[in-house]
Amino acid sequence: MSELPGPAALREAIRSGAHSGNTSGLAAGFVQCNIVILPAAWANDFLRFCQLNPRPCPLIATANSPGDFTLPLLGDIDIRTDVPKYRVFRGGEFVEETSDITALWQEDLVSFALGCSFSFEEALLADGLEVRNVTEGVNVPMYRTSIDCKPAGPFRGKMVVSMRPFKAADAIRAIQICTRFPAVHGAPVHLGDPVQIGIGNLLKPDYGDPVSIANDELPVFWACGVTPQVALEAAQPPFAITHAPGCMLVTDLRNSRLAVM
Amino acid sequence: MSELPGPAALREAIRSGAHSGNTSGLAAGFVQCNIVILPAAWANDFLRFCQLNPRPCPLIATANSPGDFTLPLLGDIDIRTDVPKYRVFRGGEFVEETSDITALWQEDLVSFALGCSFSFEEALLADGLEVRNVTEGVNVPMYRTSIDCKPAGPFRGKMVVSMRPFKAADAIRAIQICTRFPAVHGAPVHLGDPVQIGIGNLLKPDYGDPVSIANDELPVFWACGVTPQVALEAAQPPFAITHAPGCMLVTDLRNSRLAVM
Repeated sequence: MSELPGPAALREAIRSGAHSGNTSGLAAGFVQCNIVILPAAWANDFLRFCQLNPRPCPLIATANSPGDFTLPLLGDIDIRTDVPKYRVFRGGEFVEETSDITALWQEDLVSFALGCSFSFEEALLADGLEVRNVTEGVNVPMYRTSIDCKPAGPFRGKMVVSMRPFKAADAIRAIQICTRFPAVHGAPVHLGDPVQIGIGNLLKPDYGDPVSIANDELPVFWACGVTPQVALEAAQPPFAITHAPGCMLVTDLRNSRLAVM
Repeated sequence: MSELPGPAALREAIRSGAHSGNTSGLAAGFVQCNIVILPAAWANDFLRFCQLNPRPCPLIATANSPGDFTLPLLGDIDIRTDVPKYRVFRGGEFVEETSDITALWQEDLVSFALGCSFSFEEALLADGLEVRNVTEGVNVPMYRTSIDCKPAGPFRGKMVVSMRPFKAADAIRAIQICTRFPAVHGAPVHLGDPVQIGIGNLLKPDYGDPVSIANDELPVFWACGVTPQVALEAAQPPFAITHAPGCMLVTDLRNSRLAVM
């Protein structure tokens, strides 16, 4: 093929096992999703948790019914095979990583697809802004904050945020750009002094890698898709499956279609 | 009258001389404008200056031709009588304040109406944000910055900014709100460290009054309508008239109609 593979071709490679790694930068222009799969008895509370906390948990699609492994809104998807790498949890504890969950599928499982920062990073880069974690080729730094999510049943916990440093004028521009994309975390939740949201040391992220911050830059913080994983650990459902970090569900939905204006 | 006076009634009071003071908070919901009046020979450069510097000089309307003292786009206006207080400049020097410029009118004068921060302050207040200068009942603090405006002919100078302090989350919200209103200065141009834009001491504004800033607040800076007055002083046209600070042209245009979305 002379063209870069689109989302359908990439998913085919993932489904066949030919690609089982990170999806960052692949199928550019198309939405990638965080995935959470839960038994139906836990699904309603998780759905409410997402609705109550739309900045960290922007719900893009759910399965039509328990046991349904398709997500037609997002493309010709079989959620049992189309994520490059899954994480399996039992009783809230991580058990194993796998690249196919067909053998683990249950008739009561409900799939949730949530927006991911890859989409807004693409919009920032398209505007000519520098995204530090992209420039430095590392995972974005993420931090547990002192901000409480609104609880829903057993799902609760602190908001996790990702951080990208910008000069003030670029931070203002980044806020404008991300405001157009509420389905992928939307505008930042904080900027400036990290202590105000309970972050002690920017160089020691709780997840991901540290990035350099210049003296004339402000740290800008976005609600992060790791938040629902933290809530999942707190809820301790008997069984749950998520994507592995960075190994997202690639969809046929164009990033630009998520813009509210 | 049992109702608050609308813009036409307020202009009538101004035209008759019954009101010759500040217009802040009057005819709520309607656009008020900064006014610059120049001889036609200087008008083209000033127009270009506004086009090159839309954040500090957002042009809302100009007279149809030299000598025309109406601004039909903004209402039934006679620019010679409908501003509560004018300032007259000769050779770039302030000469006098007056409440009627009919006797000073010349056949070559061109009027410019520029957006004013009153409109976006109303939008911030309507969203439930606290605007410190309003709370404290003082003029907004304004500062000369180190940011160069783009010059046009003799019109040049540093950008003047106004400052309102906000907590980070409110600053982000303020950026979102003001982005909708490019015709009244739009989004802030800076936030955080004032030294980065050449401001030494926030408590010593170059114009207006200081306001209190809490430890957990960021100063947020907007391009300010004093900028064209500074450019006017630099250009030293033989003759010019502006509104007096706070004594604006009240128009029939609704603030909400300035929203780009």
